[in-house]
Amino acid sequence: METFKQWAKQPPMGWNSWDCFGAAVTERELLANAEYMAQNLKAYGWEYVVCDIQWYEPKAQGHIYKKFTELEMDGYGRLLPAENRFPSAAGGKGFRPIADKIHALGLKFGVHLMRGVPRQAVAQNLPILGSDKTCRDIAHPFSVCPWNTDMYGVLDCPDAQLYYDSVVAQLASWGVDFIKCDDICVTEFRKWDNPYTADYEIEMLRRAIDRCGREIVLSLSPGPAPRDKAAHLAANANMWRITGDFWDEWSALHRMFDKCLEWQGVAQPGAYPDCDMLPVAMLIDSDPSRPPIHRWTRFTEAEQVTMLTLWGICRSPLIIGGDMPTFDDFTLRLLTNGDYLKMYRTVHGARQYLRREKNGRGTILWLAEGDGCKYLAVFNTDDRPHRIRVPLSEMLMPDTAYTLFDVWAGKTLGAHRNAASVPVEPHGAVLLRID
Amino acid sequence: METFKQWAKQPPMGWNSWDCFGAAVTERELLANAEYMAQNLKAYGWEYVVCDIQWYEPKAQGHIYKKFTELEMDGYGRLLPAENRFPSAAGGKGFRPIADKIHALGLKFGVHLMRGVPRQAVAQNLPILGSDKTCRDIAHPFSVCPWNTDMYGVLDCPDAQLYYDSVVAQLASWGVDFIKCDDICVTEFRKWDNPYTADYEIEMLRRAIDRCGREIVLSLSPGPAPRDKAAHLAANANMWRITGDFWDEWSALHRMFDKCLEWQGVAQPGAYPDCDMLPVAMLIDSDPSRPPIHRWTRFTEAEQVTMLTLWGICRSPLIIGGDMPTFDDFTLRLLTNGDYLKMYRTVHGARQYLRREKNGRGTILWLAEGDGCKYLAVFNTDDRPHRIRVPLSEMLMPDTAYTLFDVWAGKTLGAHRNAASVPVEPHGAVLLRID
Amino acid sequence: METFKQWAKQPPMGWNSWDCFGAAVTERELLANAEYMAQNLKAYGWEYVVCDIQWYEPKAQGHIYKKFTELEMDGYGRLLPAENRFPSAAGGKGFRPIADKIHALGLKFGVHLMRGVPRQAVAQNLPILGSDKTCRDIAHPFSVCPWNTDMYGVLDCPDAQLYYDSVVAQLASWGVDFIKCDDICVTEFRKWDNPYTADYEIEMLRRAIDRCGREIVLSLSPGPAPRDKAAHLAANANMWRITGDFWDEWSALHRMFDKCLEWQGVAQPGAYPDCDMLPVAMLIDSDPSRPPIHRWTRFTEAEQVTMLTLWGICRSPLIIGGDMPTFDDFTLRLLTNGDYLKMYRTVHGARQYLRREKNGRGTILWLAEGDGCKYLAVFNTDDRPHRIRVPLSEMLMPDTAYTLFDVWAGKTLGAHRNAASVPVEPHGAVLLRID
Amino acid sequence: METFKQWAKQPPMGWNSWDCFGAAVTERELLANAEYMAQNLKAYGWEYVVCDIQWYEPKAQGHIYKKFTELEMDGYGRLLPAENRFPSAAGGKGFRPIADKIHALGLKFGVHLMRGVPRQAVAQNLPILGSDKTCRDIAHPFSVCPWNTDMYGVLDCPDAQLYYDSVVAQLASWGVDFIKCDDICVTEFRKWDNPYTADYEIEMLRRAIDRCGREIVLSLSPGPAPRDKAAHLAANANMWRITGDFWDEWSALHRMFDKCLEWQGVAQPGAYPDCDMLPVAMLIDSDPSRPPIHRWTRFTEAEQVTMLTLWGICRSPLIIGGDMPTFDDFTLRLLTNGDYLKMYRTVHGARQYLRREKNGRGTILWLAEGDGCKYLAVFNTDDRPHRIRVPLSEMLMPDTAYTLFDVWAGKTLGAHRNAASVPVEPHGAVLLRID
Repeated sequence: METFKQWAKQPPMGWNSWDCFGAAVTERELLANAEYMAQNLKAYGWEYVVCDIQWYEPKAQGHIYKKFTELEMDGYGRLLPAENRFPSAAGGKGFRPIADKIHALGLKFGVHLMRGVPRQAVAQNLPILGSDKTCRDIAHPFSVCPWNTDMYGVLDCPDAQLYYDSVVAQLASWGVDFIKCDDICVTEFRKWDNPYTADYEIEMLRRAIDRCGREIVLSLSPGPAPRDKAAHLAANANMWRITGDFWDEWSALHRMFDKCLEWQGVAQPGAYPDCDMLPVAMLIDSDPSRPPIHRWTRFTEAEQVTMLTLWGICRSPLIIGGDMPTFDDFTLRLLTNGDYLKMYRTVHGARQYLRREKNGRGTILWLAEGDGCKYLAVFNTDDRPHRIRVPLSEMLMPDTAYTLFDVWAGKTLGAHRNAASVPVEPHGAVLLRID
Repeated sequence: METFKQWAKQPPMGWNSWDCFGAAVTERELLANAEYMAQNLKAYGWEYVVCDIQWYEPKAQGHIYKKFTELEMDGYGRLLPAENRFPSAAGGKGFRPIADKIHALGLKFGVHLMRGVPRQAVAQNLPILGSDKTCRDIAHPFSVCPWNTDMYGVLDCPDAQLYYDSVVAQLASWGVDFIKCDDICVTEFRKWDNPYTADYEIEMLRRAIDRCGREIVLSLSPGPAPRDKAAHLAANANMWRITGDFWDEWSALHRMFDKCLEWQGVAQPGAYPDCDMLPVAMLIDSDPSRPPIHRWTRFTEAEQVTMLTLWGICRSPLIIGGDMPTFDDFTLRLLTNGDYLKMYRTVHGARQYLRREKNGRGTILWLAEGDGCKYLAVFNTDDRPHRIRVPLSEMLMPDTAYTLFDVWAGKTLGAHRNAASVPVEPHGAVLLRID
Repeated sequence: METFKQWAKQPPMGWNSWDCFGAAVTERELLANAEYMAQNLKAYGWEYVVCDIQWYEPKAQGHIYKKFTELEMDGYGRLLPAENRFPSAAGGKGFRPIADKIHALGLKFGVHLMRGVPRQAVAQNLPILGSDKTCRDIAHPFSVCPWNTDMYGVLDCPDAQLYYDSVVAQLASWGVDFIKCDDICVTEFRKWDNPYTADYEIEMLRRAIDRCGREIVLSLSPGPAPRDKAAHLAANANMWRITGDFWDEWSALHRMFDKCLEWQGVAQPGAYPDCDMLPVAMLIDSDPSRPPIHRWTRFTEAEQVTMLTLWGICRSPLIIGGDMPTFDDFTLRLLTNGDYLKMYRTVHGARQYLRREKNGRGTILWLAEGDGCKYLAVFNTDDRPHRIRVPLSEMLMPDTAYTLFDVWAGKTLGAHRNAASVPVEPHGAVLLRID
Repeated sequence: METFKQWAKQPPMGWNSWDCFGAAVTERELLANAEYMAQNLKAYGWEYVVCDIQWYEPKAQGHIYKKFTELEMDGYGRLLPAENRFPSAAGGKGFRPIADKIHALGLKFGVHLMRGVPRQAVAQNLPILGSDKTCRDIAHPFSVCPWNTDMYGVLDCPDAQLYYDSVVAQLASWGVDFIKCDDICVTEFRKWDNPYTADYEIEMLRRAIDRCGREIVLSLSPGPAPRDKAAHLAANANMWRITGDFWDEWSALHRMFDKCLEWQGVAQPGAYPDCDMLPVAMLIDSDPSRPPIHRWTRFTEAEQVTMLTLWGICRSPLIIGGDMPTFDDFTLRLLTNGDYLKMYRTVHGARQYLRREKNGRGTILWLAEGDGCKYLAVFNTDDRPHRIRVPLSEMLMPDTAYTLFDVWAGKTLGAHRNAASVPVEPHGAVLLRID
């Protein structure tokens, strides 16, 4: 097993600032969430607190990027936390003070990066730490992100590796435990006359982390990552997105069943297809036509159960998207269900057992191996409640008694032979442990 | 359930003359096989004795058709057994004497038909029994079989139905129990300017049988039948071919795994996808460049076990292709294994559980439901022997003891938890009953 | 130049029985037309009188073929004139008496053939003259015409050549000067599993004619002949159809402009793309739902002028389709215009000079070389009259005087410099000679 | 006619610095060429002296662009001549002194622009003259040229128009008579998720010129411009490239026959498809692996005649690419042939009359209308000399005498009837005036 996979023997569990603060999260908000996590979630395995995109942008607001805006940066073209948003970074301390506080809470700290070198560093032709080349030398002239103007991609050359090395070394010196790198694993926009691929930038990042002397988990974004790159992704990263940005709409949740099937069998210790953040509780509205406003998740409780059930049985990383201090009882209980989390930590071999839908409505069953048991996720994709049949004799042995335990309800359903049936809410799920 | 399905509540088991006598089988050969079946196989469920194509062709020889040859025919354009080959048919008795003898042995009798009306009846403009139209009136001008010149297809008109009625009534009067109709369920050659389909001829045949007053099982040939016509086929016939002619070559046997997967879930009582005859024991060689010569099947014993295992777990009809009196001990034991035949009669819900091959070599598992048990077919498609793992904990429950019984060996393998492994010969199969 | 091309140094001019008598023409009708031609058209170059399809079918009626009907045939599978329709054929004289009468009028005689050997000769297994094989031996089992059941195509074998030789020898002995062979030059229906082509039957026919000792012009039908077979067609036949059957509808006439462009440059002495018969004057109606009825051409006079102009400038054969004794003054004048026929005999190098249409309506100009002059055909494809500009300075030399002669009107339009304009009727044409 | 078309009633004739000086041309070189033109070519109609790309790049060298390099620019993001290369620009005078000198020679002055706004002006967030927005506001975030990093494209917004207005106003104030705008008329690289088109930037440039108060001819580059945008191009520009960069290789010259056919009929007064510069005499070598070196054109004299003949009969602009002071007698004579230039000024309606090649070798004829005459260009694309037939009787009138004048040889070929023939060198051309 590659060493870096040992840094994520279990799929990462944590929180990310994007869904509830967009590009504008502040030190205070980060720490408030860290404290909430330490008090309420840490005991259940939640540990990463991740600051998402544009922490180096002083004027960031909501989810909409200012194009060509000034970024905070050091003399080597490495981005720095905007001090107006992260006051503890003053005096060149970077994220070190925040990382220290999060570590003191028994948690881990993550940050977001954009692939490449800042266009601003190229314009200023800044030197690269440890190199006699400059940012201008390593910038790729035409490799630009299609949704954000902060960076140029880099050329496939040794000095670009030195630049990535310098960036990761700085993050390591701050105490960063997790990097979410963006604009790096979807290839669909990259249609040039001479086809271009950013594969080598993933590899550069891998090497930079391996050299930095700190265990840093690597997460790649956005998706959809190409399915045929699964081996390359697993050889270089701990997790990678399998869809574009996921938000709280049933249609997006329903499509995730397709994506989980597409990536079925790929998850392995240390390398996980990622279904994206969990948009629960309080989020901000990402409509570009007005300032960001806070709003509660549009998902019903049943839909949240479906989401957790699918992410969990497939072993997607679990990264909370909502502002944790706003959690209500339901949300907190959902994320701290011990039987669920036991399944999450032990399950493997998940596969779609049955999908019987008409016009996108019907039944989906996912079956997986547990520790001395099986797990069966029973999904109702219809918008009406249904009793759904559990075909025990077909799945297991006929004329044999099996004990069913309802994970979310926390109660046994007794012994059944050949078949059972469970009532499932509209868009909801029942997660059964079979003993 | 349509009535005709009750005539084949179990998939038909029998023998057909094509693989060992081509178009030239004689009364003596038919009866010799019937007698062998009565003595050696009947007790195990084998019952149909089927006379294949061109029994009305006096000069037939091997598998190669004489084009435009004279056929024996009555005054209504209905084909008659060639008396030089079937002497008991003399005096207009048709197949009645042979059917009587086969019935007296406790067996059933089947014959082959070509779709349509003889070109010779069209040339002679013979009347149709019970109609004031003639064979010329009902013949389709351009619907010709691409590999045999005996017939024209018919037009979609009431008098064509009368013709089919007259043909089937005659067969019924002779005591025929089974019709194999050819040139009727593959559509790939039918590419006309105005697309043509023979669907209505299948329906005509269905109606003719339903009207004839006798229970006659209907088998359609050749294949590959189009998968998207499954519902139409099941509504009209008892069995239909899913491939072209099957012969004793590993590559053909290996391809059958694909076809069985394609048709997975379609078999139902009374209506069966058909993997074609079993080319075992003595066959004739179908090389067109020389007279037919008898030769033993090219299949190894292991390959024959694979063939029976796959046909059986998928509930394909079992129609023996070899000359039965030549059977050696192996062949006879293979076809009379009680545990196997018990599975065949009770199994359902077969599905491919796993296929892991590289360059067409590896492991295939098919899993199915038995009567209070499961059946697992373990196939080794490599040309070297392998121990193949049986993933009990994944298929069934972990940490639970299951008893494995080797159906072909007729012995128990004892109780296993989580996993077992079985040695499988090259191109061979092990069929396990799991209790 | 191949010898057979010398038999048609000019494109053939004549009459064919199909448009006005269908498959049912009689001796009386043939001769009546021959006599009319001799008296009224022969002096202008018209010479062939062609008896179209199924002269061997005693019960023929109109344009609809009786399928599988009995054909008159000799003991070698060669078709014979039906004596009820052609009484002079009695006593085995075939078409000899009719040919003699037509020759006596100073004209030439043609007959129609279907590709292949009669199915009836195959059913009867007749011998082939000069061969020890039979009609059954040479018949192709699956090569059937998609619109007529009289024949099978033949296999590509020496005895099939002998059969064609025997057929053509008989026609030659009768005095036939022209063969129109059908079902032979369109390939679109011939889609078999093993692709089939009838090319070799064209070549067999060529050889049979070359061997028969008589100059017989060969015409191939129906179309559309494939454009990419132009070289093969020109090497084997004197004329071949470039469209399906042509009838008296403007849309069909309008489409012929596309086909003439497609075949532009292919016509050469002895080998001509054929635009099909001229449906002028009295025709029979080819509606299959009722007996044939006579009716006058639906073409307006202007459309007939357009047809003659296009056929003529492109050097298509001119084969009259209407019943000649019914001709009115207009029709007769149209077909006997001396200036037009002079152009027809001398023109070459015709090319579309300009096509300017919107929604199929506008102007088309075809330009060609004459004998010491040029010809310009000015077509108005709109349904309103237009004055159409003749761009002399662009086509020829600027500032130079050219004399325009209106061929159909038979009058000079005087001298013009740089441009002229001519009024053209809806769907009509003006044919100019430019001196 | 749109007003701007009157500024180029004849296709522009001039010189451009790219082929012989790349991106690095200097004031001295520009003026040396202007002086040569004034003395030797002006009398024949040559008038534009155009300074090509990156005159604002102090370190430019040959044809290879330095990526992200510093550009000379004013406080409004408008590029300025690099003073080290154009000393007279010192003191903010821009190109005014050079323009004055060129005007004093009786010639006109042109400059090159790249589409969009400098990335450097975006990085510096410079204001836009007459707007309260900045260069950052108008820059398109993802519209980048695929071969040069100087600019961003602009958004489709009013302030982007103001930016273009300010740029063109400055050029007008300097006395610029011709703008060649680059990265603007080929769309093939523009493949974004949301398809992007630069059409509106062409329109902005058109408006900026129309508003600037000076007659400035607009040339668009590079090609291939899409043929289906011909109407849009003609409505906005005086000339546009129909191919990518053209260099002195026979294969490129031979391909131009295809492009000229594709654009046949589009040229009109004021709007011309452009075959690109004429790489004659001394050029610089554009191999990126070494410093630029001067070398003589690889075109043979015959090929140069072919190039001038094709460009001329099609009315492509004629823009000399070689360093004019190096001209030898041949080159100068070629470009000052009075009969040729008379044709160039009067010809219209050019069309390919015949193309008869095999494997790219053979004969091509282009025919066009002159003033009271016709012009016929006779091209030999073979690599051996040929006598080529001039089919007078087919092109014009048979049996009529025409006088042929060999334009390049400057001599009459006498009167011919029906046909003539002319010897043509390998890859060469004969240009005939027909009277």
